[in-house]
Amino acid sequence: MRFDVLTLFPEMIEEYCNFSILKRALGNNILTVNVVNPRDFTLDKHKKVDDSPYGGGAGMVLMPQPYVDAYESIEKLSQSVTIMLTPQGAPLNDSKVNEFAMYEQIILMCGHYEGFDERIREIIKPVEISLGDFVLTGGELPALCVIDAVSRKIEGTLGKIESADEDSFSNGLLEYPHYTRPREFRGLKVPEVLLNGNHKEINEFRFQESLKRTKLKRPDLYRDFKTSD
Amino acid sequence: MRFDVLTLFPEMIEEYCNFSILKRALGNNILTVNVVNPRDFTLDKHKKVDDSPYGGGAGMVLMPQPYVDAYESIEKLSQSVTIMLTPQGAPLNDSKVNEFAMYEQIILMCGHYEGFDERIREIIKPVEISLGDFVLTGGELPALCVIDAVSRKIEGTLGKIESADEDSFSNGLLEYPHYTRPREFRGLKVPEVLLNGNHKEINEFRFQESLKRTKLKRPDLYRDFKTSD
Repeated sequence: MRFDVLTLFPEMIEEYCNFSILKRALGNNILTVNVVNPRDFTLDKHKKVDDSPYGGGAGMVLMPQPYVDAYESIEKLSQSVTIMLTPQGAPLNDSKVNEFAMYEQIILMCGHYEGFDERIREIIKPVEISLGDFVLTGGELPALCVIDAVSRKIEGTLGKIESADEDSFSNGLLEYPHYTRPREFRGLKVPEVLLNGNHKEINEFRFQESLKRTKLKRPDLYRDFKTSD
Repeated sequence: MRFDVLTLFPEMIEEYCNFSILKRALGNNILTVNVVNPRDFTLDKHKKVDDSPYGGGAGMVLMPQPYVDAYESIEKLSQSVTIMLTPQGAPLNDSKVNEFAMYEQIILMCGHYEGFDERIREIIKPVEISLGDFVLTGGELPALCVIDAVSRKIEGTLGKIESADEDSFSNGLLEYPHYTRPREFRGLKVPEVLLNGNHKEINEFRFQESLKRTKLKRPDLYRDFKTSD
């Protein structure tokens, strides 16, 4: 899987990739992350990439020329998807993550300042993805979320001790509660059933707990689960 | 505003804070970000912070002792909120961001590996917040999203040229399209109305565009807006 990230802040992406599962997968060449800075493509003599909005108002707007030229400089593989990170996009979710994980290449468009000149959207026609109804300084954190979530689904990125199969949402429910040592901590005990070694009972306990907390915390998921059941 | 972040990967938080608006606000002492590593609190002689789950299964679970002790080491200010980043939480949104921005202190609990021992939740009783129905390697990216989104709302973090008032969601609608120079790019022109200097017409154009794209992309927001109208 190859990620190409369009950003004015390459270090934000590069530094994060030096940690955790990404580092391991990058080292194994299972993933590559390539950062492209629109500032390197500006034809403006002052290296400007943004300017004030026509019609007035606060904030600076990303100019179309450096951004579109930077985008077009990226080699496109045959199975490629381009994603713009914007609060106006569709919410990222597990089924989108699975869909994105089937591509060979994901191109991520990070904005910054007040936003993109509208013509960038019109020319590139990206899939627009959001992390929710709130606003961030830039698209770098959402882009890293896409990279992290998609990477976990790719064979070879998670180690043997980790697993994406038992995550929340993988069966349409929230995950059951976890317990590890010690058996008792500040008077709170691990449920007996987890200690008895009976795997049928353990699975049933976990399934019931998943159901219970999904019903409590996410009635919408619970309804969907019951319907598909 | 003071952020305290509980994480096994302090560099992920620290590196990000060296960029963009956070750096400026940290330099001005408008924000402080304090990182606490549960690994520094483990009583285990091998410095372990996680162990395999009771009842079996893939993944490692964060042990309660190092995490709870690390949490309790943090000085609590009088207006303080503790947030656990977990896919089981309520979705982060603009009204939650505004609510969090009114505290003096936000304590952010990042998980990693398979998740938290359930007793950590039971003892600390945090507010649980999610970025959506997908799973990440850890809570660090969501914690950074909270820090970034909340920081933008605090006076003095955004520069004069930036503004949170005109963002998407601030009036219940998606933001209108932005345009900057040049007037024409690859045959695509800036709408005439933005060039005529008539602010009443510009405001009306932007409002209608906001309405139009909210109706198209987010019928749920559009309905809420019409109702409150």
